[in-house]
Amino acid sequence: MSQSNTIDFWFTVGSTYTYLTASRLHQVEAATGLRFRWRPFNAREIMQEMNNIPFATKPIKLAYMWRDIERRASKYGLPIKVPIPYPLKNFDLASRVAVLGEIEGWCADYVRISYRRWFVEGKEVGTEPNLSESLSEVGQDKNRVLQAANTERVGRAYDDNTSEARRLNIFGAPTFVVRGECFWGDDRLEDAIAWHARATLKPI
Amino acid sequence: MSQSNTIDFWFTVGSTYTYLTASRLHQVEAATGLRFRWRPFNAREIMQEMNNIPFATKPIKLAYMWRDIERRASKYGLPIKVPIPYPLKNFDLASRVAVLGEIEGWCADYVRISYRRWFVEGKEVGTEPNLSESLSEVGQDKNRVLQAANTERVGRAYDDNTSEARRLNIFGAPTFVVRGECFWGDDRLEDAIAWHARATLKPI
Repeated sequence: MSQSNTIDFWFTVGSTYTYLTASRLHQVEAATGLRFRWRPFNAREIMQEMNNIPFATKPIKLAYMWRDIERRASKYGLPIKVPIPYPLKNFDLASRVAVLGEIEGWCADYVRISYRRWFVEGKEVGTEPNLSESLSEVGQDKNRVLQAANTERVGRAYDDNTSEARRLNIFGAPTFVVRGECFWGDDRLEDAIAWHARATLKPI
Repeated sequence: MSQSNTIDFWFTVGSTYTYLTASRLHQVEAATGLRFRWRPFNAREIMQEMNNIPFATKPIKLAYMWRDIERRASKYGLPIKVPIPYPLKNFDLASRVAVLGEIEGWCADYVRISYRRWFVEGKEVGTEPNLSESLSEVGQDKNRVLQAANTERVGRAYDDNTSEARRLNIFGAPTFVVRGECFWGDDRLEDAIAWHARATLKPI
């Protein structure tokens, strides 16, 4: 259940724009008093169902995306070093580790620091050496995590998250959900926060 | 040629998010001292070339788009009355009238007020009674405009604009161009303005 000061942050490990969000949410929490609940789900699966292929077959749009992310990172004061390896080779493992983190309580820190290694040091999430380095930084044993991440329990939790996202009509990552209202994209975070504060359309 | 205080505003009559931009640019100009050069082009043609179909085949994303536009309009204090007839029946004519307006100097006013009739009164751009009412409001004779809009000269100007957009790697509308740098989407207008002011990435 969402608490009154909580916004759900739905994301997919592997989504590029999620770097911007994952890297600044802790600052947003400090500035606003809000809490974000990190919900990893499989946006790729939902997008495939919808035949929603925003970039892979569209090189001009893909080039724009990287430039846009670079500019937005600069705007937020976030480091970034392009080109960035993409897409993730170990997409499923990367996601499952985040789901385990959600269950065990270290998801936000792990995702934030593993994304930074990906976007600044060029080390892919879900792949060595990012896995060992990032898990170590959040105090988790890599061998235990890899074993646990591949259990049926974690797979079911991941599927359940994706099903819940589907029910909420989420079609991409990141998405913020405030009382059932979806805000898609890092660039809608401020709209989601404003919605949380008033929860209505402003009268004209 | 762009002048130093000018940002190019590339748009397509028929693009939904363009309502937000077309309706607020005059206020942005007054607040910033910038000038926007209105450049109508055929985003639909470029998107078809790229097999970029963001909404037509994606009902959940389409529903989100309308809700997002409704919320953004509220944020900007712009009136809107959903549902809005979409897509335009007379897409080509709507575009050609805007191109004629670009040539003759009444494009911005015409597009702004015809979009408002579309998004507030449900009267499609490029269709009666919007055509007569909006052209009359900008002091243009409808019969003359319809004849001129269908000339080869206007068709060529429209194609030339679309070719120029393609060369600039524009892939959607609205797009702002500042010294060759593209900013796609009404929600990137503020980034384009900031870029105009500094024209570099902020050092980290």
